[in-house]
Amino acid sequence: MKILFDGLGGDNSPQEIVKGAILAKNELGIEIAIIGNKEEINKILLEENAEAEVIHADEKIENDEQPAFAIKNKKNSSIVLGLKALAMDKYDAFVSAGSTGALLAGGLFIVKRIPNIKRAVIPTPIPTIKGSVCVIDSGANMDTDPELLLQFAKMGNEYVKTAFSIENPRIGLLNVGTEAGKGNELTKETFKLLANTKLNFVGNVEARDIAFDVCDVLICDGFVGNVLLKTTEGIAGFYNYLLKEKVIKNMSKEGQVEFAKNYEQIKKRLDYKEIGGATLLGLNKIVVKAHGSSNAMAIKNAAKNALDSFNGKIIENMKNCF
Amino acid sequence: MKILFDGLGGDNSPQEIVKGAILAKNELGIEIAIIGNKEEINKILLEENAEAEVIHADEKIENDEQPAFAIKNKKNSSIVLGLKALAMDKYDAFVSAGSTGALLAGGLFIVKRIPNIKRAVIPTPIPTIKGSVCVIDSGANMDTDPELLLQFAKMGNEYVKTAFSIENPRIGLLNVGTEAGKGNELTKETFKLLANTKLNFVGNVEARDIAFDVCDVLICDGFVGNVLLKTTEGIAGFYNYLLKEKVIKNMSKEGQVEFAKNYEQIKKRLDYKEIGGATLLGLNKIVVKAHGSSNAMAIKNAAKNALDSFNGKIIENMKNCF
Repeated sequence: MKILFDGLGGDNSPQEIVKGAILAKNELGIEIAIIGNKEEINKILLEENAEAEVIHADEKIENDEQPAFAIKNKKNSSIVLGLKALAMDKYDAFVSAGSTGALLAGGLFIVKRIPNIKRAVIPTPIPTIKGSVCVIDSGANMDTDPELLLQFAKMGNEYVKTAFSIENPRIGLLNVGTEAGKGNELTKETFKLLANTKLNFVGNVEARDIAFDVCDVLICDGFVGNVLLKTTEGIAGFYNYLLKEKVIKNMSKEGQVEFAKNYEQIKKRLDYKEIGGATLLGLNKIVVKAHGSSNAMAIKNAAKNALDSFNGKIIENMKNCF
Repeated sequence: MKILFDGLGGDNSPQEIVKGAILAKNELGIEIAIIGNKEEINKILLEENAEAEVIHADEKIENDEQPAFAIKNKKNSSIVLGLKALAMDKYDAFVSAGSTGALLAGGLFIVKRIPNIKRAVIPTPIPTIKGSVCVIDSGANMDTDPELLLQFAKMGNEYVKTAFSIENPRIGLLNVGTEAGKGNELTKETFKLLANTKLNFVGNVEARDIAFDVCDVLICDGFVGNVLLKTTEGIAGFYNYLLKEKVIKNMSKEGQVEFAKNYEQIKKRLDYKEIGGATLLGLNKIVVKAHGSSNAMAIKNAAKNALDSFNGKIIENMKNCF
């Protein structure tokens, strides 16, 4: 398998992207290519004593650019050139920490959707007491309808089966109460549709229960999913702050050392960098979005996600399902 | 000031409600009355060696009942009889841990809205590094529009000025990015409306920043606000679980004791029971909703919220503003 990395995407490009690609090559045994500023990338490769195919691209799509506009106008951007190379089967996957919107728009315009799938979505795993739950949609589609959420559920079902080896994934609908009939117009209608499928639909799920292993796929619109995800991140940060400033600081030196040693373990568990990326679902090729602030390890884990999707034949499975 | 407590509302009624009312009487110096099963309430009062006016009501509105239907049909419920007594000025406030929907529906049908206010909302404080931020709406209105969110912002502005003594509250709009133009149709339009007011509008706020003191009032629709709140609760619970099971258990006895002593402080800070209730905004009288699983302390804190709203003349201020 050969993965193309976006050397211009994310807050820490190109340094961490190149290092992450090298990590992926060494640890996952894949071939790598990097697209971006050739001179800078080669310099880092030299420093790291590593080799990789490098493609030059000198335009970066920023997060605040209107995605569809940027894709049409920045012909020499790493995302446009990278996705074109992917569409031409030169690589098996594209990994980027760049603009989510641009990746999606580029995915739709250049890589194209699988027939009968109306929108592409990003399934994002968030940690639970037993492992993780995939949130779909976590930010791609701001305004949706029940038919779309039903498609998200079908895509999530295939993705979790393939990428997480879960045989009959439990599909939950994010809602404000567990009882049927709860929610807004969107979730009330979606509930009815999901209840009429062969999916393993476990009903409404309240946000407070998500971490406690109540479902494998959590369905919601992209606005709500994004709020959910960022709340999770924010509260984790808040907790870390409180622990550090209000608890640990007041403890003895010995207590601090002992706590730190044990705490390392759960910190790792809640770290998005450990979780890595998410495969954009609904596209004809594997495109993995890594977190904007990804470091080398996060990029490597995003590559792992691409590898799993590739080995699990996610695209073929998705095509068969729609 | 005299507060009427709903002795049938919440998971821990009547025991914790009666005890909470007694706490409120003793600590806040208010007069109290309790509505519910007279026999049971009197028994608890006797046990606690306390006195209170008791009104009999023998119907409880359950959380899974359709609110408007329940309000119309359960004429002898504590919520219907309690709100009627409030509307007749027999009491200055009604505090209930019962069904949020029924309280809102009852508030609208019995207590009535302030003229020109279209919907009643629940402002819920969530903890931040410096204090708290009021989330409006946190679950009352599932389907909204930009005009409604603008009203929520105005109500929140008045509430925070009154109940938290903040002179020029910072109003934030919950969104998926900080840049103008981000979001779904609802937030894009609401942004434009808010930017054209005299409110201290600080723009879009991402969920990950909420805990870090970026605004005093956070505007969103009730579905999203509810997800935000319950995510916060859920992640706090998840963190507590991880700390207990994966960190503390592996520490020495001495380390455990030292940690527990210091941790007590932040646990208290994240505890909804400490925060107490929220005044329903937009109604002609003070109605405070306490958390369904409130204990006596939470009920007392809900009464404190009612007292602050009463002293701050929240109803008069709200009327002047619309």
